[in-house]
Amino acid sequence: MAARPTRVRLVETGPRDGLQNEPMPVPLAVKLELIERLAAAGLTTIEAGAFVSPKRVPQMADSGALYRELPRRAGVSYPALVPNLAGLEAALEAGLDSVALFVSASEGFSQHNIACSRADSLVRLAPVAARARAAGLSLRGYVSCIVACPYDGAVDPAAVAEMALRLADLGCDEISLGDTLGIATADSVRRVIEAVARRLPRERIAMHFHDTYGQGIANTLASLEEGIATFDSAVAGLGGCPFAPGASGNVATEDLLHLLHGLGCETGIDPMAVAVTGAWISARLGRPYAARAGRALLAAAARTEAPIAL
Amino acid sequence: MAARPTRVRLVETGPRDGLQNEPMPVPLAVKLELIERLAAAGLTTIEAGAFVSPKRVPQMADSGALYRELPRRAGVSYPALVPNLAGLEAALEAGLDSVALFVSASEGFSQHNIACSRADSLVRLAPVAARARAAGLSLRGYVSCIVACPYDGAVDPAAVAEMALRLADLGCDEISLGDTLGIATADSVRRVIEAVARRLPRERIAMHFHDTYGQGIANTLASLEEGIATFDSAVAGLGGCPFAPGASGNVATEDLLHLLHGLGCETGIDPMAVAVTGAWISARLGRPYAARAGRALLAAAARTEAPIAL
Repeated sequence: MAARPTRVRLVETGPRDGLQNEPMPVPLAVKLELIERLAAAGLTTIEAGAFVSPKRVPQMADSGALYRELPRRAGVSYPALVPNLAGLEAALEAGLDSVALFVSASEGFSQHNIACSRADSLVRLAPVAARARAAGLSLRGYVSCIVACPYDGAVDPAAVAEMALRLADLGCDEISLGDTLGIATADSVRRVIEAVARRLPRERIAMHFHDTYGQGIANTLASLEEGIATFDSAVAGLGGCPFAPGASGNVATEDLLHLLHGLGCETGIDPMAVAVTGAWISARLGRPYAARAGRALLAAAARTEAPIAL
Repeated sequence: MAARPTRVRLVETGPRDGLQNEPMPVPLAVKLELIERLAAAGLTTIEAGAFVSPKRVPQMADSGALYRELPRRAGVSYPALVPNLAGLEAALEAGLDSVALFVSASEGFSQHNIACSRADSLVRLAPVAARARAAGLSLRGYVSCIVACPYDGAVDPAAVAEMALRLADLGCDEISLGDTLGIATADSVRRVIEAVARRLPRERIAMHFHDTYGQGIANTLASLEEGIATFDSAVAGLGGCPFAPGASGNVATEDLLHLLHGLGCETGIDPMAVAVTGAWISARLGRPYAARAGRALLAAAARTEAPIAL
């Protein structure tokens, strides 16, 4: 156990992890407006795109154009996902100053997702990381399947710690630990954090939850009590499988803000501005607005109630 | 802090708290099948109806008929909500052996919901409780608005403890503490439990969460860590405002089971049977199936994946 943080930083992944599986193309102008709205709401890290195969992830094919058009705000970082040297070069060309690398904690997911072993993925990332550091970029690392893998089942926390450490060795400042299946519960989350925290300072660990089994906020609570102060989330809970109506994706930024502010953790983010943005992007995507706290905030405002000070 | 329980009892409120606000009448046969399915899934306490004003709550107008037709299962209790002596007499006539009384922790909600003060509500319930005990019924008590009230704002935990104690004095074996607005976060929940636990043993306290701000599972986790071992929930997360599509109501039994079983807390309940029931009742109500863990379980089964043993 570690002290619960009083200040928490959110990494908004809606424009990338949230949109990458949308079935219909999302216009560049919509993406740009989404990112602008999120920055205006107070988000200071917004993952805005990915320089990955346009064939495999067509929604991210316009990332180069997006970054060239995106107005930068002081104090806001806009990293993108980069899988290899070609992606990194495209990111550098588009003027990025921070990128994120990703690996899997499980062998099965590594093979299925990027068609190589965990060990090979690290070997392949080494020159990418070296080139990024040489170019002065800041680096983030993602470890996926930190509790369970769709192919291998339960994942050993020691394997997560090992992959996290290797990403740190490559120069990643922050390592984001992702419950890709959204199946973890609080105790398994704590075990992973404790395993990784034996190798890396907790300040360098971020948690990335999906809400597939409704556990995202509870797992965040458990992580806060483990001293974690950085969390990934997506406005409107974007990122669910678009073919399963209402299926939940990333933990919703709105729900996370309600938890954090309720616990007295400062974020610098305006929950109402996020809720308005969440309702707006959901409408643009033709989806019901699925973030509970966002819906509740808007409904309370519609009834012109005074906010309840707790 | 108290030891986390290894065995947890769920009080299924779907047929009552879940259905009472549905805009369209729910046929009696559907209610009976819902209750039967829940009992078959392993729920041992199922709140099946309410003997309240049929004008104010038309969905519960058939509670007398329901209880007369409902097949009882050994080991399963089917309490109903009772607001007054007339309701109690109707419940006795329908053959009930357990009923639930309800009060508010806040003055404003008491006045708006039952048109009398908290003090008067206790005075009115005294003869109801006495008659119920004399008839050999077991009694449960509900305290609503335990953290916030739509009229009064923040609620003092001491007021919750006072109302809980008064219900216990009336003979209620178990007191269910309800976050009616679904706005509470973990710390405020812990404060309420600690205030009530100074007056009553934790074994007599149940928690009743709504998921309006997405906090139901996190608040359950906090309550488990406070030694609470009884939770109210509703299959499919029924109970949301039916005029706000997708709005969340009670915390979903499905999500709660995923948490509890993930933490190693036994419930005796079959999550897949609950998920099938949740999807079925949602379809009967013409709603999307809104319980995340239930949807995820069914989706995994549809892909004929082996369940992931964590």
